[in-house]
Formats: sequence, structure tokens, C-alpha cells
Amino acid sequence: MPPVSGRGGTGAHPPSFQQMWRDLRPLGRNPESKGYRRYAWTAADAECRQWFKDQAESRGLTHELDRNGNQWAWLGDPTAGDAVVTGSHLDSVPDGGAFDGPLGVVSAFAALDELRARGAEFTRPLALTNFGDEEGARFGLACVGSRLTAGQLTREAAYRLTDADGTTLPEAMERAGYDPAAIGPDPERLARIGAFVELHVEQGRALDLSGDPVGIASAIWPHGRWRYDFRGEANHAGTTRLVDRRDPMLSYAETVLAARREAELAGAVATFGKIAVEPNGVNAIPSLVRGWLDARAADQSALDTVTAGIEKAAREYADRHGIDLDVVRESFTPVVEFEHALRDELGAILGTDRQLSVPVLGTGAGHDAGILSASVPTAMLFVRNPTGVSHSPAEFAAEDDCVAGVAALADVLEGLACR
Amino acid sequence: MPPVSGRGGTGAHPPSFQQMWRDLRPLGRNPESKGYRRYAWTAADAECRQWFKDQAESRGLTHELDRNGNQWAWLGDPTAGDAVVTGSHLDSVPDGGAFDGPLGVVSAFAALDELRARGAEFTRPLALTNFGDEEGARFGLACVGSRLTAGQLTREAAYRLTDADGTTLPEAMERAGYDPAAIGPDPERLARIGAFVELHVEQGRALDLSGDPVGIASAIWPHGRWRYDFRGEANHAGTTRLVDRRDPMLSYAETVLAARREAELAGAVATFGKIAVEPNGVNAIPSLVRGWLDARAADQSALDTVTAGIEKAAREYADRHGIDLDVVRESFTPVVEFEHALRDELGAILGTDRQLSVPVLGTGAGHDAGILSASVPTAMLFVRNPTGVSHSPAEFAAEDDCVAGVAALADVLEGLACR
Repeated sequence: MPPVSGRGGTGAHPPSFQQMWRDLRPLGRNPESKGYRRYAWTAADAECRQWFKDQAESRGLTHELDRNGNQWAWLGDPTAGDAVVTGSHLDSVPDGGAFDGPLGVVSAFAALDELRARGAEFTRPLALTNFGDEEGARFGLACVGSRLTAGQLTREAAYRLTDADGTTLPEAMERAGYDPAAIGPDPERLARIGAFVELHVEQGRALDLSGDPVGIASAIWPHGRWRYDFRGEANHAGTTRLVDRRDPMLSYAETVLAARREAELAGAVATFGKIAVEPNGVNAIPSLVRGWLDARAADQSALDTVTAGIEKAAREYADRHGIDLDVVRESFTPVVEFEHALRDELGAILGTDRQLSVPVLGTGAGHDAGILSASVPTAMLFVRNPTGVSHSPAEFAAEDDCVAGVAALADVLEGLACR
Repeated sequence: MPPVSGRGGTGAHPPSFQQMWRDLRPLGRNPESKGYRRYAWTAADAECRQWFKDQAESRGLTHELDRNGNQWAWLGDPTAGDAVVTGSHLDSVPDGGAFDGPLGVVSAFAALDELRARGAEFTRPLALTNFGDEEGARFGLACVGSRLTAGQLTREAAYRLTDADGTTLPEAMERAGYDPAAIGPDPERLARIGAFVELHVEQGRALDLSGDPVGIASAIWPHGRWRYDFRGEANHAGTTRLVDRRDPMLSYAETVLAARREAELAGAVATFGKIAVEPNGVNAIPSLVRGWLDARAADQSALDTVTAGIEKAAREYADRHGIDLDVVRESFTPVVEFEHALRDELGAILGTDRQLSVPVLGTGAGHDAGILSASVPTAMLFVRNPTGVSHSPAEFAAEDDCVAGVAALADVLEGLACR
């Protein structure tokens, strides 16, 4: 395609980096926790989507919603192929922080503004994206938007996704004004992408410990979610003798502690952070304790060791207390090694242009980039998180580091799309 | 007062014992669990209250709602004093059984029918009762109706009771069409009561083990509820190193197991059956794990040993994981020794009339009878529970045993009110 000038848009100045943050700040915010509740296909999600559309239009980009509810903002011809794509997501975990997701979207717009200020001329189409339902907070499965597009989640399986109130994904989409009939794999769209780069706040302390504002991802650890259903017998907590009880809370508690031990032994992480109890009455021994295990490790063999060890321990505890145990793997993502060629290209661009020492680091967090990496060359940039805290209202990145992230992303986009 | 004939009422036959059960069966029943969700001041509660009123009126009794929302059905002059009162409650724990509460109310009506069939003449007023909100499933405090009447819960404290949705007790009463302005102690009403007898399904296996259909209560164990708030730091479950975590689920799990150990050592019972987790996301380390401890023992000293032992262990675990722990006693009921004179009178009546061997047994369950016993002579009858299971859809009492319970209650009422 012929070079497209980065200049253009509406003529007026688009919102600044700081203004974009100010506009996003109140959307879906829980005033009590100060955290965010931007769940897929809710009112808060709709506000975030409108914000994305406004940003795209204020920059003269072509806004497009794909069949799976992901948003795209195009500079240049979307159908030309070999596009450079950057973006992240705007949804959140329950009471999540401001940066996980939005930093990558805001930085995408800010990097485009920076390139336009530099007078960059684009030789490849550029798209900015907001992937839908990355966190899976509502329907229990992460990266629904990118999984559908990449063919890693079937339409049938997506139709069965149900939230805590019994609303299915297609019902939620319809109520939000979207047509769920079209959801499914989108190979044509994938084929247009030449490279995908996602910028994300780091969710650990590797950059803080190394003293660098920006890093490049090497790999995403294999990770998954397992549902543990401990079923006992509901009974009166005041009158049932200890020997007559089948209390599933005891086996659950032992399993929580076993998960920590197994993770320590394997240098992995394992967490029970979500629970549902029936009947959940103060004076009732539970009939059911349902706990969700999140486990991740640097490689598949370590992860298998951890999850097998936890399940074995849980079955022993359950047997001892007369508890029935079901363990269901609800989701799983194998290890993602980001493409070495693109990763090296990013390293070369940042090393030359910015004279940055750019550490290359693994991460335990899943991302849309991890999903897309199976289909297109994909890379990730991380921005320093001084405490490592994420998925919490206390999640934070310093403004200087965010600005360094925008500059690095602009360099990468210029290196990929303008040379 | 002059003797009042037991005969009377509308002339038509009142609903039989079996018919009363059939009418109650569908009210507030959860079709999935087959358990009951009859929570105070809900639609299901209103249906149960209407049933009680219908039963009273079909027998020509005077229906009365007291200032605290308890229902009374009078035979004879309510103001004459020295009344014999019997009844229980119709509300339930979450997914509770059919018998805990309703057995005492149904048996009260059936015992009156039996006495009328015998042609009994009443020399004291008789009242049948349904006490409101006995289980405390909605507002977290048990026996709200009887506590208010007996002056064991102040109007101010009752006004502060709040359910999981943030609805206060007075708001809930208003929405149900009751005026909460009048709630508070009711000494005048208490002064009218000469004796209160509550029949209840046993919630343990003492009668099953002794082979008796009916027993008499000796005492209610001291018991209470404690809220344990473990506060840590929300964080990403995939990327936060184990050493950087402050995960309150670990301290909670250790405390659950400590409660079991301490209860075993003291021959008591201790249960964590209710939990609330924030943010309760699969991939988020919790910021808060709130667990409720229910603990009961045969005497105060054993209970103190258990609760102090659990709290000490919990504080050690919390300190080790950097967790802030608050422990709040939400409710407490000291040991209730039922009045020996009335208890002996019941034993004599049943021993003579029925030639029953009537075991006298303690119980770990709280009851309205326990609350009222501080103000009026009070006794309890228990009906055999073949499995001991209670607070569960599987709660059960055999029809023969229920009929034996009605006969025993009729004898007791005749002995107290007709001689």
C-alpha cells in the first residue's frame, strides 16, 4: 500500500494522555473499594466501549466492531493485510485496578499521537484494539473475545457460558444491544494482522527488582483454573456431634493449605481465591463447598506436578471426612513462547532508538496476546509496577514509567509500520 | 376465669394434621434443593403467616399480631393472665428442613384439636404462637421476635440489623406491610404467660440412641456466633510471588482446622459454615476473607476454652501471614436451664398418662423457649429424629413419632390448662 500520513484526524487536538486517564477514571468504579467493576456487557463495559469509540473518532480512525464484540480503530486500509495491531482490554476483575488493560489501550492512542507529532509515515495499516471480556470476571472464562476470534473457543461453548445470575453470554450481549448470532472464529480478520503488540502493566516485581521502566515478554506460563466441589451433608451446627458430621469445609481448608505447600515445593503459584458455599448459614454445616484453584508454573511439567499433588491431597482429605469430591478443569492455556523474531526486533528497536536495556521476562498472567500468538506474530511490552500489586485498587504505575511505555510503544510501532 | 369449653370454632372440621403438612409443604420451598427458604419478612414468610392466621381462624381462635411481629392464636381471654402458651416458628435456615419450627406449630394446632375431641374444659387461657425470625437467616441474629418481646434485644439494636442486600429490619418490616415503629420490649404480654411449652424436632440423635419417640429438654447449651475478618492484600493470583503475598485465605483455612481440633479437645462443637470473600475472583488473591464461627458447649467454661483457643490460634496464623484479624462476637446466649418444677410436671404428666419413659436431654440448639425462659416458666418437648440431621432438606421425623409428639403435647396442655 502507499504510505499513509500519520497526520490527519479531525484537525482538533485529540485528548492528551492525562485527559484519557481522567475520562476513564470514573467509569465502572466502585466508590467503596475504589476498585473497578467493568464486567463484560454491563453498563460499565458499555461506557468503556463508548470511550474507545470516541477516542478513535477524535483521531479520524475508522471504528469497527468485529463479530465477537472486539473493537478496532483503523488507520489505513483494514483490508490491505500485514497490519500492525496494538491494544489490550478495558474490562476488569472484581474491584480491579486502573492499569491492567487500560494502560495498553491508552498507550496505544498516545503512541499514535506521538508518531503523528513525529510526522511518521505509515507503510502498513495500523489498528488499535480493545478486546472484549479479557478478565472473564463475569462468565468465568478469560479472553473470550480473542479466543473466539482465534478459534480457541467454539461458538457452542461460548453460548453455554453463564454468569452468576444465570444469564448466558448471548443473552448478555443481546441486552447490551449486540447481535450474538455472528460470534465465532474470524480467520479472515486474523489473516490481516502482520504483528500484534500488547503493552501491559507488569503484574509482578521483575522490572522493579531490575530497575527498568520497560521490559519485553519472553513467555506466558502455562496456567489453568480447576473447580473443586466438596460435597458433604448439611446439618445443624449446634446439635450434630463431630463424629456424625460430613463437613466439606474441613476438606476445603486442608486443600487450601496443600495448594500452598505444593506450589512452594515446585516454585509455582497456586491460589484458592474464589469460593461458593451452600447453604452458607452461620448455624449450618455446609452441604457444598466449591473452591476454584488457579495454578501456574514456568513449564508444563512443574504445573502438572503441582496440580496432581493438590488433587491427590484433596482426595485423601475428602475420603477421611466422607466427602465427595469432583475436580473439573474449567480452563487451561499451555505455555506461550512469544515469537523470537518479533521479540528480537522489539529488542533491537528499543536498544537502538532508546538505548534502553530491555529485560526479557516471563509472566504468570494470561493475556489476549497469549491467545493471538497461536495465530499471528505477537509480542508484549511490560511497564514497571513498583509494588507488583495487581487485580487490586492499589495497582499502580508511576507516570514517568507510563510515559516511557508510550515512547517505547511508539518506537516499536514506528519500527514495524513506518520503515 | 370460668372454664372455657375446648369445643367451638367455626363448626367445620379444622384441617387435619396431614392436611396442615400438605398446605405448608410448598411454601418457600426451593425446587432445586428441596429445602426451605422462609426468611423473615419475605414473600415466603408472609405465606407462612397467612397459613397460621387461617389455621387460627378455622378453629375460632382470636388471631393477634404483637408489636414485634409474633403471631398469637387465643382460646379464652388473652388478658386474663396465667395463660398456657405453646408454639414455635415457621421461618427456616437457608435450604432448611420441613420440621425445624413448623413441627411445633403444626403440633400445637393438632394438640388443640385432640383436646377438643377429648372434650377438655380449659381453666386457663391457651395461646398458640408463631415467633418471628427465629433462625436469623436474613439478619444474622437468631430469635429476633422473642428477644425483642423479652427485652433481650433493644429497639435500637434491632433497627441496626441489616441483611446481605443492605435492607434494614425496619425497612423489611415496612415492605412486608408491618409497622416497625412499635417494636420493643413487651412486659405486659410476658406477664400474661403462666407457662410456655415448645415442641421441636430433635436436632441430634439422643432419642434415636435411647429408642424413645419423645423427650423433655433439660438445658440449652451456651452458644454464640463470632465473626472473623481476615484482611490481607488483593493481588494477581498468577504473578504475585508466594513470598510477596498476604493471602487471608490461608489464615482462614488454618483457623477452620483449629476450630475442629479445639472442639474435639473440649467435647464441644465449633463450625465455620458461612463465608464471604472479597473480591472472590478466580485469579485474585483475596483482600478479605470473612468467616463466621458458631460454637457451643455443655457449660460456659468449656465454651470459653474452645473460643479462646480458636482465637489464639487464628491470631498466630494471621501474624505469620501479615494478615489483620478482627474477631467480633455477634451474638451470645448463656446456658439455659429449663425450670425444674415445670420440667418435673411434664415428666409426671407424660409418665402417668402415657406411661412413657421420657428421657431428659440437653441440646446445643437455641430456641425461642430459651429466650422466654428468662422471663416465664418454660419447657420443651423433643420428637425423635432418626438421623439427627437438621438444617438440611434431609431433616426428617417419622409420622408415628410426630403423632406421639402431638399426643404428648396434648397431655401436657391438658395437664397444665384443664385441671
